[in-house]
Amino acid sequence: MTEDATYRLAVVDLLGALAYGELTAFERLAEDAAFAPTIADKAALAAMAVAEYHHFALLRARLEEMGAAPEEAMDPFTAALEAFHERTAPADWLEGLVKAYVGDGIATDFYREVSAYLDDSTRDLVVTVLEDTGHSAFAVDRVRAAIVAEPRLAGRLALWGRRIVGEALSQAQRVAAERDALSALLVGGLADRGADLAEVGRMFARLTENHTRRMAALGLSA
Amino acid sequence: MTEDATYRLAVVDLLGALAYGELTAFERLAEDAAFAPTIADKAALAAMAVAEYHHFALLRARLEEMGAAPEEAMDPFTAALEAFHERTAPADWLEGLVKAYVGDGIATDFYREVSAYLDDSTRDLVVTVLEDTGHSAFAVDRVRAAIVAEPRLAGRLALWGRRIVGEALSQAQRVAAERDALSALLVGGLADRGADLAEVGRMFARLTENHTRRMAALGLSA
Repeated sequence: MTEDATYRLAVVDLLGALAYGELTAFERLAEDAAFAPTIADKAALAAMAVAEYHHFALLRARLEEMGAAPEEAMDPFTAALEAFHERTAPADWLEGLVKAYVGDGIATDFYREVSAYLDDSTRDLVVTVLEDTGHSAFAVDRVRAAIVAEPRLAGRLALWGRRIVGEALSQAQRVAAERDALSALLVGGLADRGADLAEVGRMFARLTENHTRRMAALGLSA
Repeated sequence: MTEDATYRLAVVDLLGALAYGELTAFERLAEDAAFAPTIADKAALAAMAVAEYHHFALLRARLEEMGAAPEEAMDPFTAALEAFHERTAPADWLEGLVKAYVGDGIATDFYREVSAYLDDSTRDLVVTVLEDTGHSAFAVDRVRAAIVAEPRLAGRLALWGRRIVGEALSQAQRVAAERDALSALLVGGLADRGADLAEVGRMFARLTENHTRRMAALGLSA
């Protein structure tokens, strides 16, 4: 396979993974809306879910422009994403907020890192769909207030945050093992794109630091 | 209370009930998306949910324009709508489709009937937010295909459709008993607006006929 063909496969994979991620983010935020303690919170979460849906629609349109079938592009990533969500089903409103903030945070950081190795047009699209829909500030506000009101919540939610990251990494490894073109893009399998192993190590260090910073923003130890 | 003040209360009630109805329609369609058998069906339901959210946002904006607090306007209707959805939680994809088609259908017919007694500007808004988001054709297509493939489904889904209507009517009665201004608007308690009792009877006949037609469109007996 030529390098161009491999690069195209990697981009289709990346956009497919992102698209299905946005569609499940839509679903999950809509489900969390059901837990919302007030109508205003419910409406706020619904608005964020709608923003995720629009990101999904942008990605689907780009896949179609590239001549790729969007469902086929998403298909390889459904099992890992469904498994992640099944293993991290929130039991209540606060767990849902922490999951979305911490889980989307690490996923967003990861995709931003990958976007460094993309052509300009794809990178612009990825950066657009990764824009925060307002959820982060909302989650930080609600979780901090809940911990102030009930300090013993902090222990349970800190454990929960660690579980989210553990499951996310284990599903990411599963995807990396199965999708060669995507992994090659990331770890330098393409001559003039991708990172070398030392850079991958630094990337993981950055992901971990940012995760620790997010947990601290919630008032939790990582 | 002056007639104008009573009319304004009735409109705030009506828009509040509709707004919360759209917000729960958003949630319910998003939940049904989780049952969807294919990614394309999931995306189609998500798009419909997004359309319902936009209707909700229009109603909330109108309530604000009227100087009414949207959350307060919605609040009297949350219990009845939540009770309806709790008692009619679909067990699978097809039950979700039938519920949305039959339940939204009768609610839409009802609000259209009421809109005859509204001022032009409110009526235009109500007609806009009642526009079908594409769910009807989608539901009819999927349910008919499922019954062709598995004819014995028809009995269970017909019973399910009757249960939906029964629960909807019982919650509507509960709301009517509690909200005087809204009921007055409907049954002619305001001098130059509203229906007389004979007209209310004819309205119920029309609602029932349309319901029977929808069940037939699904391939079910009412």
